[in-house]
Amino acid sequence: MNEFNNPKQVHPPLGAYSHTVTVPPNATWLVLSGQVGVDAKGKLRAGMRGQAVQVFRNILACLRANGMHKEDLVKLVVYVTESRLIEEYRVARAEMLGGDVLPASTLLVIDGLAQPDMLIEVEAWAAKG
Amino acid sequence: MNEFNNPKQVHPPLGAYSHTVTVPPNATWLVLSGQVGVDAKGKLRAGMRGQAVQVFRNILACLRANGMHKEDLVKLVVYVTESRLIEEYRVARAEMLGGDVLPASTLLVIDGLAQPDMLIEVEAWAAKG
Amino acid sequence: MNEFNNPKQVHPPLGAYSHTVTVPPNATWLVLSGQVGVDAKGKLRAGMRGQAVQVFRNILACLRANGMHKEDLVKLVVYVTESRLIEEYRVARAEMLGGDVLPASTLLVIDGLAQPDMLIEVEAWAAKG
Repeated sequence: MNEFNNPKQVHPPLGAYSHTVTVPPNATWLVLSGQVGVDAKGKLRAGMRGQAVQVFRNILACLRANGMHKEDLVKLVVYVTESRLIEEYRVARAEMLGGDVLPASTLLVIDGLAQPDMLIEVEAWAAKG
Repeated sequence: MNEFNNPKQVHPPLGAYSHTVTVPPNATWLVLSGQVGVDAKGKLRAGMRGQAVQVFRNILACLRANGMHKEDLVKLVVYVTESRLIEEYRVARAEMLGGDVLPASTLLVIDGLAQPDMLIEVEAWAAKG
Repeated sequence: MNEFNNPKQVHPPLGAYSHTVTVPPNATWLVLSGQVGVDAKGKLRAGMRGQAVQVFRNILACLRANGMHKEDLVKLVVYVTESRLIEEYRVARAEMLGGDVLPASTLLVIDGLAQPDMLIEVEAWAAKG
């Protein structure tokens, strides 16, 4: 089983994540491409809320298709194109993952993604013992 | 063996990558530093094409030196400094990796790299069962 | 044991890192959240030096709390908000990790982090056979 920890010597997490996740030697890993807000028909959703919800739909579909679940997520790297969009991302994340899925995480504001109207991309790693 | 999948519930990949890669428990992992367009003599190549080709030369050399091959790549994270350079990167990638090497991938436009004249950096992860 | 290598066919590393790290199949992995310059009391340290030193204190605390050590680090991804801060980061890194801890590494200049006064974030991965 993966173990999610927050060492006492480090400040409490500043959001919905764990400082560390331990993955045991017998784990199968699932490596995901960065997911963007494109739906199953190939259409980029409008706005941060629509794109962020779609990103997590895609991540959850990738997990399910490989026999994994959101509890198996061990790492998220979240890229947004404007800092003013961070709060809206957090709301969508809470809605889609709930409050008890706490992989190690990183949040970054970057210049751009593969297409100019993409506002968010999320990389995920999962592992199952 | 690593398994490369594209779940039916997620849009087809927007480029040369797989949505998910499953790495089995018995795999040896190869973790690579972000590779830049510096050749074996320490000279930074000129232009996106030159740098991107060199990046993949370096990645392939790193794989070979550790008994791995391009088919063992499970993840690429590509950082470019200008969105107008993305297409040129894709051409170099296709030339160097071919069309049937499809690791999970992420593409990001960022402010800069370790030196101001670097245009691209690629991080790679490989795994072999 | 993890193996740190620099292939002869690739230029010597441009800083304190190894081009490749091999992690054996029996390893336990430790996945860390991106660490920022916030101390144990929740206060963001001032300036690049203060933040970078705190980042490595946090990383070392995360390792120790999970029975690992700096020698088990296999990958660092360093995000800084301004290229003029890179040298100051390198000094703090050398001070905190010493010269013989050489994980695979990537250094990127990005637009911003989760809070506007954060200057640096470092993601780390560790593995122990």
